[in-house]
Order: sequence, then C-alpha cells, then structure tokens
Amino acid sequence: MAHQLERYPVEANNASCVLPRVIYMDYNATTPLEPEVVEVVSEALRGAWGNPSSSYLPGVKARNIINKSRENVARMVGGRAEDIVFTSGGTEVSARHTGVGPGEDLNCSNCRQNGTSVRPHFIISNVEHDSVRLTAENMQTEGRADVTCVAVSKVTGRVEVEDVVAALRPATCLISIMMANNETGVIMPIKEICQRVRSISTQRHVPRILLHTDAAQAIGKVRVDARDLGVDYLTIVGHKFYAPRIGALFVNGPGNSTPLYPMLFGGGQERNFRPGTENTPMIAGLGKAAELVNSNLSDYETHLRTIRSYLEDRLLAVFGKERIRFNSHFPGSETLPNTCNVSIIGPGLQGRRVLSTCRRLLASVGAACHSDRGDRPSHILLSCGVPFEVASNALRISVGRGTSLKDVDLVVEDLRETARKLEEMN
Amino acid sequence: MAHQLERYPVEANNASCVLPRVIYMDYNATTPLEPEVVEVVSEALRGAWGNPSSSYLPGVKARNIINKSRENVARMVGGRAEDIVFTSGGTEVSARHTGVGPGEDLNCSNCRQNGTSVRPHFIISNVEHDSVRLTAENMQTEGRADVTCVAVSKVTGRVEVEDVVAALRPATCLISIMMANNETGVIMPIKEICQRVRSISTQRHVPRILLHTDAAQAIGKVRVDARDLGVDYLTIVGHKFYAPRIGALFVNGPGNSTPLYPMLFGGGQERNFRPGTENTPMIAGLGKAAELVNSNLSDYETHLRTIRSYLEDRLLAVFGKERIRFNSHFPGSETLPNTCNVSIIGPGLQGRRVLSTCRRLLASVGAACHSDRGDRPSHILLSCGVPFEVASNALRISVGRGTSLKDVDLVVEDLRETARKLEEMN
Repeated sequence: MAHQLERYPVEANNASCVLPRVIYMDYNATTPLEPEVVEVVSEALRGAWGNPSSSYLPGVKARNIINKSRENVARMVGGRAEDIVFTSGGTEVSARHTGVGPGEDLNCSNCRQNGTSVRPHFIISNVEHDSVRLTAENMQTEGRADVTCVAVSKVTGRVEVEDVVAALRPATCLISIMMANNETGVIMPIKEICQRVRSISTQRHVPRILLHTDAAQAIGKVRVDARDLGVDYLTIVGHKFYAPRIGALFVNGPGNSTPLYPMLFGGGQERNFRPGTENTPMIAGLGKAAELVNSNLSDYETHLRTIRSYLEDRLLAVFGKERIRFNSHFPGSETLPNTCNVSIIGPGLQGRRVLSTCRRLLASVGAACHSDRGDRPSHILLSCGVPFEVASNALRISVGRGTSLKDVDLVVEDLRETARKLEEMN
Repeated sequence: MAHQLERYPVEANNASCVLPRVIYMDYNATTPLEPEVVEVVSEALRGAWGNPSSSYLPGVKARNIINKSRENVARMVGGRAEDIVFTSGGTEVSARHTGVGPGEDLNCSNCRQNGTSVRPHFIISNVEHDSVRLTAENMQTEGRADVTCVAVSKVTGRVEVEDVVAALRPATCLISIMMANNETGVIMPIKEICQRVRSISTQRHVPRILLHTDAAQAIGKVRVDARDLGVDYLTIVGHKFYAPRIGALFVNGPGNSTPLYPMLFGGGQERNFRPGTENTPMIAGLGKAAELVNSNLSDYETHLRTIRSYLEDRLLAVFGKERIRFNSHFPGSETLPNTCNVSIIGPGLQGRRVLSTCRRLLASVGAACHSDRGDRPSHILLSCGVPFEVASNALRISVGRGTSLKDVDLVVEDLRETARKLEEMN
C-alpha cells in the first residue's frame, strides 16, 4: 500500500542527476485509488459499458453494478440504498446541499410566514469549503437567500453549538456545517448541533430546519453515520477516500422525509434527482472504495493516528518545542487522525518557501484549489485564531493509508535540512 | 474492433442451454470504450491521481494530461483549447447550454429593452433531447423564460430555417437545436440557421442571439466544426463516441466573445466556469477518443455508411419493399451514417415486442432513457410525421465501428425469424 513510493518516479532529464524519492503527504488534497478500486473501474470500463437505462442484458448488468455500489456507499454512511444519489463530485453535491440547488426556490414552510413569502435564511460556518461558501454567497448576492456565516471559536477551532443557536431566525431553513475541516482536521460537533436545532424547532413550533454536513474529509478516516449524526444531507467525495473523482449525496429519504429538487433536467436517471447517463465505472469504483472502508475503517484509523503521532513526536524532537506550533491542536477538540497542520517558527520559513525547497515532501499550505493564491496565509487558520506570522509558516501535512514510519523519518529529516538551508540564506 | 462479440458472453445459468451470440446495434444509446481509451483511463487512474490544482509534480502531471486532452477535444470540433470546458456529461452541458444554467438570469441586452427588463425568449425544436427540452420547459414554468418549440417538418424531418426565423422575437436570446436527431439520425441545417439568424440580427440591429447545438450524436460519425457551423455553444458527450461518460462544452471564446456563467461554485477549476476537482482519468479518456476521431473520422464514416446501407438492402431483400418502412428516410435530408430507424409492417410486430423476442439483436425503440415508457410509440417519430401504427413498430438500429457485414446477416435473419414467430402467435 505504499502508494507514494512507486507512483512518482521523478523524471530526471539529466541521467547524471540523482533525485531522491518524493513522499506524498497531501492526502487531504486527494488520494490515489486503491489497487482494487482501479481494477473494478477498469473492469467496468471494459465490460459494463451498456447504458444502465437499456432494458437488455448489458443495461441490466450496468444497473446491477450501480445498485451494489449504492448499497456499499449507503452502508459506509449509515444510510439506506435509497438515500444515496450519485453525482459528478463534491462540488456538485455541495451546490445541491442546499436541498435546492442554485436557481430553485427553497419551497419550505419556514419561508411562507403569515401567508407572505420571506427570504430563506441559511447558516454556514466561516471555514466551509468554497463549494459551500461561494454557493451560499451567490444566493445572497442574487437576493435569493440571507446567509449567516458563524465564526469558529478561536479557542476550540470548532463551530460552537451556542453560536449556531444564536444565529437561528424564524426563516432559517438550512444549516450547512462541515464534519471536519480540511486544513486543521478539527471535527465539528454536528450531532450536538442537530440535536439542539431539532429540540428548538420542536419547542418553538417552528417548521423543520434542514441540516447538511460536508463529510468529504471525514469519510475513510473516522466513523461517519448520517443517522446517528442526525443530518438530512451529507456530502460524499470519492477522491478523498481512495475512490475515483465522483461524489454522492446522502439524503435521509429523498423526496419523502427530506426535500430534494433536481439541479438538472434530463433522462430521469437517479429517480430524476440527478439525470444524465450514469457513469457506471466510476460508480463501481466508489462502491468498491466504500466496501474497503466498511471492512477496514478501524485499521485505517489506527494506522493514521499512529503515523500522525509519530510525525508530531519527531517534529518536536528534531526542532524543539519552542520552534514547533501545531495549528491543528485545540484544547478539547478532536481532530482527524491523519492531519498535522504545523508551523516551523523562524524567519524565512513561510510554508510555500519550505515546500518548494523540500526535496522529498509533497504537502500543501491549505486547500489544493487555493494553491495559486500567492503568499497570503490561509484564511481558515486565521479564522481559527492562529497568529498571522504563525499561519504564514503553516504546512498542512496529511498522511495516508500507505504512509510508513520510515517515510516520516525521511520527511522530518527533509524539513530539518530545508529549515537549515533557508535560515542560512536569510 | 468487434466490440459486440467478446463483451457480452451471455451468462447461461444452465450450461446445457446454448445461447446464440448477441449483437449490439444500439450505438446511439451508448458505445463501448475503444481499447486504447480504456488503456489511457486505466493508466491515469494509476499514475495521474494527483490533484491538478496542486503545484508539485503530480499536480503538474495531471494538469498536463488535462491540457493535452483539451487540445484534442478542441481539434475534434474545430475549436481552440480555451473554448473547451469539461463537465460531468451531456446533461450538465445541456443544462448549461442556455449560457446561463438554471437559476442564472440571462444577462443580455436583448432582455433590457427601452430601459425595462423583459423575459428572455428561447427557441428549441420539438425533437430535442430531454436535457434540453425539460431545462427549457422548467425555465418557462418558473417564469424565467418564454420558450418556443419549433416543430420539425413532417416532410423533411428537419427543423426548417424559415420556421426558426418565424419564431424570432425581439427578446430572443438563445436558439438551441440539436445537430442530429438520435432516433431518425436526421441532420439539422445548423449552419444555415446560424447564417440566417446572424444576418437578421445585423439587418434589424437587434443584439446578438446565442446559438447552441447538441452534437452528442454527430461527433465521431460526421464532421463537426463549431466555427464552420457558426454556433456559440456545442455539446460534446463522451459515451457516444467510444469515450468515457463525461462531457465537454465548446464555447466560442468563453467569457470573452461568448457569455458563460458558472452553474456551480467552488474551487475555481476550469477557469471558474466549472469548479470541482477535475476527473483527470475521464478527461484523459475523452482526449484519447477525440484523438482517434481526429485521425480516423473518414474511415469511421465510410464504414458506418457501408454497414448501414447493407443493413437496409438486406432488410428490403428479406422482407420485401411493402413490409419495410424506413423512418429515417426523408426526401432531401441527410442522416447520420450509422442510424437505421425501421418498422417491419404487420400485426403484432410492435418494436418492443420484436426486440424482446429477438435472440441476437440488442437495439432500442428510441432514446435509452425512455426505455421504461411502456408501449407508446416514440414522440420523436410522431413529430416527424411517421403514422402511429408505423411508429409503434419502429426499431432504432444504430451500428458501430465494429459492426460487420456478417453481424448484419445474423441480425436480419434474427428479425426474419422473430417476425415469423410473432405473426404465427398473432
């Protein structure tokens, strides 16, 4: 499972230049596919290309594969097969998380008060992925919704339940808070938020408020159970758990218990919730990856936690306590077992500079889609109360199923040399 | 290239029951992937899983693959690399074809007349794919657009230029007519429509009218050149030309010469026109399939035309002229080289009944996504003037790159036996 080893032979143009083996520790950006997943996808590309809507055998074969995947994905998030809607990816799911999709009107009773129609109100956090934040902002800009952006606590790095409660309005229809942050790894108190919001709805006799969580970063690392959490919608993103680049949406009883409106119109696939000829091979791969999570989650979690602890121990041992700040440590907050957000303190050790000097380590300073945003430190870290100078030096190191203790040794050594080099230059 | 041979070994539960080899002739529903395409996809699944937004080598590698694909896809439709936006599939493209996407306001000067805002007006045909028709209908239902549905001529099976011109209004912003129909194979006069509309815009000094064509069925079968056609938008659907199930949109100068608004919001991928981590392996496959079309289109076209002609000749020879109606023959209209829509005349020979009795032939009676719509004949055929009783018996037989003359012989024999059997039962 040492994905990072074989897959990146550095292509040296000059044969006399011997380059070291690079080590991938950016598993929160994307993961490789598990070999079993590649096999399932390739097999389906070859043998299950029939149109799943066709009534003859090749169509039936494709439909059966899709149904089996749906069951595995459902089991992974504690849902039933009928709760799963396959989509093109996480961004589509997140746009859809609103239960409405851009352009649909949120047709809920919260917005029809005293016989008149009021603008729907959404609550999100200030550390959501852009696919949630920008969708919400766009709806606000277009006058189709009011949005409250709840700030995470600068002490705990979490969205606090009381802050969500304080943001509630009579027209609140939807709350969307991620399950775990991609940069800090902090796990949000989704279950507690759901419980409090439900109990308030009941007490105040206000209509139901829909709850969505983006579980992109949590799945495959910690247990995710949508029903136990109490959410109505949950985003599933394949390429974060060794599956291909498609996504799925968990909806608790789509169209029955929980509203779901199509964003697209077409041939009626996915019970009209998501038309378009199904991408059977990608769906097959998503199902296989879910099956692996269903069987091995506790092993994965233990491995990730062991490696991450060792990494943190080594960083402290090599650099000393006074030169290391863990931006993913918040008192009382749990974090993803694989995520280490760390700053090496010292002049000239800005995160981007460190990474571009490292000879082995492949990691990032924040979300991959922000990699071209110049030298500004991560707004997520600043929102979590990390001081500007510390945030500027942040490295998001996220380990994977195949990361070994030896990899950690090599990476820490790489960072030591890099820091020495950069400080000498300074 | 005999895709239909090896890929459907009929799984006989009873070993003593010898089943004949089935023959796939439903290439307008979906196509298998070319072996070279499968190889490219599988290779990318293994080796190009880096996040294309990451700045380190694996990200760069993925970006390079995406860029190369973009060039191949652009070349296939006569565009430039920057004109191509990758999407999840044809349905997403079609929803987006409006240049707006559901929920966006069409922000064009046609709709701001005399300083007041009028409702945008769209023109589509009555034989469009559901992804276009339902999107337009939904916008009409929601009061966001007026839609005129131009009927195809019952003589030519085509949308006639004069009928489009007659439907123009001062608020017309968008015309969306498919390039070739998926059931009759009739090729629409897109170039002539574009020329006439442009010339009228110029004469009447009305603002630009945007033109979209869904080229899903045309690509890989006939030459498609978006610039020569004169369209602003063109839909590309991978799984119709031996590529994986993703799509792309050609836009003539997106965001510059031609407006394009995002339907989704997220990480800024595809120059913000289509965010979401790019599906590198699928895009690589789309590029490879485009490369094959670029190199071999005239061979493909000749082969398809030869096989289709032979099929039509054999049907006439076996059933006789009086029992065969070609629903894809319209005086003066060109058709796709691979599509034969045929009715065998006689009682009890309804299309669905024939297909479910055939032992070898895998074909359909219309669009695959309508395969569960019971016994009603295709509305497309009825719209084209095919009488009800004839349309009820219609079979859409669409041949592929790997279809052989021998396959045709076997299929025609299969149809002969089937017709005999059903007539005896009647």
